[in-house]
Amino acid sequence: VPVSDLPARVGLLGGGVIGGGWAARFLINGVDVCLFDPDPAAPRKLEAMLANARHAYARLTLAPVPTPGVLSFAASPEEAAEGADLVQESAPERLELKRSLLAAASRAAAAQTVFCSSTSGLRPTALASTMTHPERFLVGHPFNPVYLLPLVELCGGRETDPDAVARAEATYRAVGMHPLRLRAEIDGFVADRLLEALWREALWLVRDDVATVAEIDDAIRYAAGVRWAVMGTFLTYRIAGGEAGMRHFMAQFGPTLQAPWTKLVDVPELTDELLEKIVAQSDDQAAGRTVGELERERDESLIAVLHALRSRGVGAGATLAGWERGLMRARGDGALAGADGAPPDTSPLRSDVREIPDAWLDYNHHVHESRYLQLCGDATDALLIRVGVDADYLQARGSYYTVETHLSHLGQLRGGDRAQVLTQILDCDAKRLHLFHTVERSDDGRVVATAEQMLVHVDAATQRVAPATAAVHARIAALAAQHAALARPERAGRRISVARP
Amino acid sequence: VPVSDLPARVGLLGGGVIGGGWAARFLINGVDVCLFDPDPAAPRKLEAMLANARHAYARLTLAPVPTPGVLSFAASPEEAAEGADLVQESAPERLELKRSLLAAASRAAAAQTVFCSSTSGLRPTALASTMTHPERFLVGHPFNPVYLLPLVELCGGRETDPDAVARAEATYRAVGMHPLRLRAEIDGFVADRLLEALWREALWLVRDDVATVAEIDDAIRYAAGVRWAVMGTFLTYRIAGGEAGMRHFMAQFGPTLQAPWTKLVDVPELTDELLEKIVAQSDDQAAGRTVGELERERDESLIAVLHALRSRGVGAGATLAGWERGLMRARGDGALAGADGAPPDTSPLRSDVREIPDAWLDYNHHVHESRYLQLCGDATDALLIRVGVDADYLQARGSYYTVETHLSHLGQLRGGDRAQVLTQILDCDAKRLHLFHTVERSDDGRVVATAEQMLVHVDAATQRVAPATAAVHARIAALAAQHAALARPERAGRRISVARP
Repeated sequence: VPVSDLPARVGLLGGGVIGGGWAARFLINGVDVCLFDPDPAAPRKLEAMLANARHAYARLTLAPVPTPGVLSFAASPEEAAEGADLVQESAPERLELKRSLLAAASRAAAAQTVFCSSTSGLRPTALASTMTHPERFLVGHPFNPVYLLPLVELCGGRETDPDAVARAEATYRAVGMHPLRLRAEIDGFVADRLLEALWREALWLVRDDVATVAEIDDAIRYAAGVRWAVMGTFLTYRIAGGEAGMRHFMAQFGPTLQAPWTKLVDVPELTDELLEKIVAQSDDQAAGRTVGELERERDESLIAVLHALRSRGVGAGATLAGWERGLMRARGDGALAGADGAPPDTSPLRSDVREIPDAWLDYNHHVHESRYLQLCGDATDALLIRVGVDADYLQARGSYYTVETHLSHLGQLRGGDRAQVLTQILDCDAKRLHLFHTVERSDDGRVVATAEQMLVHVDAATQRVAPATAAVHARIAALAAQHAALARPERAGRRISVARP
Repeated sequence: VPVSDLPARVGLLGGGVIGGGWAARFLINGVDVCLFDPDPAAPRKLEAMLANARHAYARLTLAPVPTPGVLSFAASPEEAAEGADLVQESAPERLELKRSLLAAASRAAAAQTVFCSSTSGLRPTALASTMTHPERFLVGHPFNPVYLLPLVELCGGRETDPDAVARAEATYRAVGMHPLRLRAEIDGFVADRLLEALWREALWLVRDDVATVAEIDDAIRYAAGVRWAVMGTFLTYRIAGGEAGMRHFMAQFGPTLQAPWTKLVDVPELTDELLEKIVAQSDDQAAGRTVGELERERDESLIAVLHALRSRGVGAGATLAGWERGLMRARGDGALAGADGAPPDTSPLRSDVREIPDAWLDYNHHVHESRYLQLCGDATDALLIRVGVDADYLQARGSYYTVETHLSHLGQLRGGDRAQVLTQILDCDAKRLHLFHTVERSDDGRVVATAEQMLVHVDAATQRVAPATAAVHARIAALAAQHAALARPERAGRRISVARP
């Protein structure tokens, strides 16, 4: 992700569930946001959404996210659009309302400002009709929660300039999204057509008392939902067809299309009775959890699934990994500049404060012992990036490998605790790096673990121990010289034994 | 999961993608399977499916799965049904074919044998009509891959005895599934009605060139699919409605149901042209990957998602965790019986051989250093379960906590390697346990890491160091006495330093 695709400033029209999600995604990526929403409660709701998003990103990624952008509120759509590189409209789904917001904002914006609408179904040609410079307008349709789900559907109208689509696409990619360009302008675009079809069928099933809303949700999340996180419907069915492939599948299951499942091809009437039934069943399903609680639960689980997909390089996980690589590259440069330019610092290096995810708990609700080493190993990685062992170095020159670790457990972390690792260089030479990590619980400053580590530098080509490059060694040696002023940790050099009285 | 709900033997009618998946799930859970399939290629196809499933389970779980059941082939449906506790029919979706298989098998089975059909749409009353004892028949509709996805829809017919449904439900739970009882007998049940609605809409989008099959799949897996692994459609929309809840959501989005998205309410005709288009686009999407390769990719990703859901106790992950707890409990008893009854063994304890999942690789394709400690920590857990520190003990009495670890890296594991941990007790007293683990790559027997560990026993009530129960200490001391005959590991008692010439 070239950093230059990041806009400096975006204007947002509407700060509800979708607009707030956009605000969070842009701010976390370091973009300034100016938001217009006539609702007096908008700032309060937005703050709650941003808190959710910040909490989520602390768990989502260890990549060095930039300094957050600055949030400001505009008194009018014109003010939100002034000076913006991109204006994103996320007002309620009423054509006239959206049209008037877009028209007003487009008069105030520079001619090159790209305009996007978050509409989930209205056509771009209709939305753009009263705008100044309608050729820079397109639909950029995201999915809730916008700060976690990467899909954004791009759909231009009759007048849309392909350059506007390309610029919107680059911007969305720069903030970690997966843009999908549509080939035709239709109501509902692609994803919502699919979701709406499933939703209508679900309403029939509730109406006919075949299943409750909770049972219908279970029918999805215990089977097809797990598959759909991984593969869409066509690839799934291709596999179901066996080695004979898609043609065989279509031959086998095509006739089902003509089966008399009549409810599929009609629309249920939303009577008061059906509405009451859905509301009552939904209340049962929520079992007293507020929407805020459900949001947190949803986000935690989405993050766990995104991590799972990232580990496989699949779909939304691949998008996340690409965004992180871009941040690592950006930070690699920045960290080096800082290390070279900053005044000497004789305190240990401090990692970012990190929140312990519940995913690290074992069946007994303890943080697995290996996770303390993971915290320290990640602190080692941060040190290595700081001295120039970045992605390019790893590929071209080599890396440091841990050969020995002595880990001491002095307390316990629990899920939700925040922790920080302090790293001190004890010793080094051209090939070796001797470190001491101290894991502190941030809330009370208590040391919960220490890890002493020895690393050796291994050449990328020969895979044998070999000296680091002069530049890397010089940076390590400079840090080590600063750290020589620190006291040697009491637990350094320990060995294990059962002391017998 | 009471072990008694596990059937001793099941009969399977049909060994295709679904029947083979059933075979794998039952065999892996220790159930004998007798399969009838007239296709001469059935044994070969089944072996490939079983290989996939065994591979998948090696990554899916560390729980002690039982000794696999025995697979045999029957020459007739009658032979498959003889002596079976459950008969599961998974023949092609043709009513007359299924009817004749069920009728023949039901004549040969004992009267109390439960019969289930894997049909994805045919009604149970119609299927049972020619059976002997139709009251013990119901639909048990699973999802591909049957050995990984937990959902099974249960739907009885007019004559079905509730006791048969209850017994089928208990059996499915015992093999790690999530049964969903339907409230009415309808074509397509619940899940397939939903999937079919989405599928029909997807066919329209392809037909009208709005998107290719790959783009439609992306429209699912980059957004709604990730959500659907976590929450179904109703709970998702409840959240989208904000604090005002479901009523607000319905008021806001209900009108969309009447929008002129006409394609939603009609069925596309499966012309040759549409068929060719889908086949060609699907070939593009597969990009040369065979169905076998796609299956492996799918399974690996499904496992990663299941693990993610397990970490959150959500949906299909909660089902997996429940099944594992049942196995741990069953093994806890068995392991103890073995330890008490078996002859003394003076070799180190050997963990199960474990395959290194790709999820353990970092961005640089190395196994993260903390994972070596995880392997050793898990070996410690296995030792503790063996000496009686099981789930009940943890809750009532206490546990051992690691206070210190000295880890040495002597080689590298790669994704897909198989590894085993050898554990030797170096020393112990009533409160302390001093262990030495050796991590061996199974393929070449090479030692890739060692870990020396000190653990202390902590009382559950006081959370302070306290002696273990006499029974646990006696078992540890007995093992330690056997291990006293082993050589002391060379790397025991090491400390870290940069040796200077």
